[in-house]
Amino acid sequence: MNSSLVGILREAAEHDEIEGVYGALFGIQGMLDEVLIDLEREDPTTIQGLSRTPAAALGSCRYRLGAEDCERALEILKAHNVRYFFYVGGNDSAETAHRIAQLAQDRGYELYAISLPKTIDNDLVETDHCLGYGSVARFVAIATMDASRDTEAMRLLEPIKIIEVMGRDAGWVAAAAALAKKSEEDAPHLIYIPERPLIPGQFLEEVQRVYRQFGYVVAVMSEMVKKEDGTLLVVPDEGPEKDPFGHPRPSSPARFLCWLIRSELGLRARFDKPGTIQRTAMAYASSTDLEEAYLAGRMAVRYALRGESDCMVTLVREPSDSYRCSTGLAPLAKVANALKTLPDEYINPEGNFVTEAFLEYARPLIGEPLPTYARLRQVPVERRLS
Amino acid sequence: MNSSLVGILREAAEHDEIEGVYGALFGIQGMLDEVLIDLEREDPTTIQGLSRTPAAALGSCRYRLGAEDCERALEILKAHNVRYFFYVGGNDSAETAHRIAQLAQDRGYELYAISLPKTIDNDLVETDHCLGYGSVARFVAIATMDASRDTEAMRLLEPIKIIEVMGRDAGWVAAAAALAKKSEEDAPHLIYIPERPLIPGQFLEEVQRVYRQFGYVVAVMSEMVKKEDGTLLVVPDEGPEKDPFGHPRPSSPARFLCWLIRSELGLRARFDKPGTIQRTAMAYASSTDLEEAYLAGRMAVRYALRGESDCMVTLVREPSDSYRCSTGLAPLAKVANALKTLPDEYINPEGNFVTEAFLEYARPLIGEPLPTYARLRQVPVERRLS
Repeated sequence: MNSSLVGILREAAEHDEIEGVYGALFGIQGMLDEVLIDLEREDPTTIQGLSRTPAAALGSCRYRLGAEDCERALEILKAHNVRYFFYVGGNDSAETAHRIAQLAQDRGYELYAISLPKTIDNDLVETDHCLGYGSVARFVAIATMDASRDTEAMRLLEPIKIIEVMGRDAGWVAAAAALAKKSEEDAPHLIYIPERPLIPGQFLEEVQRVYRQFGYVVAVMSEMVKKEDGTLLVVPDEGPEKDPFGHPRPSSPARFLCWLIRSELGLRARFDKPGTIQRTAMAYASSTDLEEAYLAGRMAVRYALRGESDCMVTLVREPSDSYRCSTGLAPLAKVANALKTLPDEYINPEGNFVTEAFLEYARPLIGEPLPTYARLRQVPVERRLS
Repeated sequence: MNSSLVGILREAAEHDEIEGVYGALFGIQGMLDEVLIDLEREDPTTIQGLSRTPAAALGSCRYRLGAEDCERALEILKAHNVRYFFYVGGNDSAETAHRIAQLAQDRGYELYAISLPKTIDNDLVETDHCLGYGSVARFVAIATMDASRDTEAMRLLEPIKIIEVMGRDAGWVAAAAALAKKSEEDAPHLIYIPERPLIPGQFLEEVQRVYRQFGYVVAVMSEMVKKEDGTLLVVPDEGPEKDPFGHPRPSSPARFLCWLIRSELGLRARFDKPGTIQRTAMAYASSTDLEEAYLAGRMAVRYALRGESDCMVTLVREPSDSYRCSTGLAPLAKVANALKTLPDEYINPEGNFVTEAFLEYARPLIGEPLPTYARLRQVPVERRLS
């Protein structure tokens, strides 16, 4: 998030047409409230430091624009003579940028609006991948390696581990765990994603098969994997579905699966749900991701100055033996409200793992090679007792 | 864990009295089954790599020795002419080593048994701190910094974050989050530990106070914080306490507190429960912790060769302006089954944070300085609209 902001600021500083750069706190919500800050009055060392600072320095929101909001946003842009509008985020952000761009055009206000494809969910269409995905993929792969060693060491006590990661509509984040696997025994052994239903009986068979083979099991799953009938995986008889304010009870498929394994197989299972750490852990940031975010920021400014508008910067994988990424443009109308799930060729026929094609796609995105851990050969000492 | 093993192996290689080094897989459980491996037949690069490999390379167990088990263990040691016995772990491991040392002495078998104080819980007596604690403390501090930025950025949507960390009987792990705090506004704002009861009404007041002041709240808590009457914090009406196998339903105080905040304050709250990642994330390992583990391994061998037995290596903080750590010895009888909780002078009077004295204690243990993140000054742009 912040690296793309740094790219925008650096590029903007190189062009006389741009006389100042404002930031809207909490995205469009701050803009509607006219809460703008002057980014040129920030210290250069602060800007430099942003590249290694997690979470959006300008704040974030999830706000769907009403018709009046769009008018208000345009009014604010006019009042401050803003001619270039950059918006960083996923689907909803693309929609926001699109509607503002459209209204400006309808009203004859000269505005160049460009969005940047930043979502760890990696579910935007038209772009090879999204900013943020390489870093979360790196986190998930390393967390799986670490959890695997932990589960292996503790397997006499608690041999089953389920890791529940983000991804409500698409399995990109969970799929990245597969990058941790170097040999057949290595975790993850199973991956469950929203693109395929989870069938409890089949799941239990798969867990049992891996358990018999290796003595422990590590499975990685998306937070919104559902049953065949589209319902959520929840532990039965756990009380009201909603709290007094009408918020739904937080569900966790991993919690359900641990309950299922204990109940049906009598095996001890535990789950990890890393939560927001997966999207903020700067220690796992992918150098490739950081570089591409910076590049996308710079290119967004150049595209706008070239007269492009109502577009999203896309990341383009160059046809080449080694990985190379450049940028392109896609109309926001195509991006807003569309969703890119894992294509069939990235999912194995059993629906419980990814294919080599996915690994080839994801591997270059995570930056430096994954760490290598030592493994003892374990040469047995000859027994002397019965 | 593995760094202390490396220390043991390196030191053992330097002494002719030691003719070979065996490892028991899964600790005492492997020993009882006579599943031993010959550690001298491992590749030197494997041993080197162990220092940066998470989780016990020899495997782990939680097994309480019966009287017959002790006899059996002694039989195995005799059969393989084992004269030096090193055992790495917490309370229960100290107890195991103690009982084997005692039996050997009773039976006149010459054995030198030394344990190493490794538990991320940091709850062993007689030692300044435990191996593993510096690394988990570093993880918790950085995870809190990261979660804080995330919550701050998302505060219009979900302003309350609770991080639930390990520590069943003592609050050392949760307390370490305080290392993340540099200014009053910085997270963590509140810390809850098992040494103090959590009073729901008071908790809600504290959350509301911080929320009014900063617009968001990050609280860190131990997994087993309880109410004043000693009962667990569980969401009411959530179904049976035990599953069909009699395993207790996993409780999570953070889950309860999120429910409480939503129900009573109507604010959106979410919790992160990092799970086993906190004890395995090698990316956050403290260099000080790794060095001390290696040192403790080497010293354990030297103490044994010097004729010490039935003792635990202790970490001793030298009286000095800057942090320096050496080692000492404590009788296992004093360590086994004892528990070191946070002393009163490390806890603030309100029972919801730690004191400067704790910070001075913990700060040197986490190795390199924590990362610094940039923060925008946010110079406002003058409003032009109402």
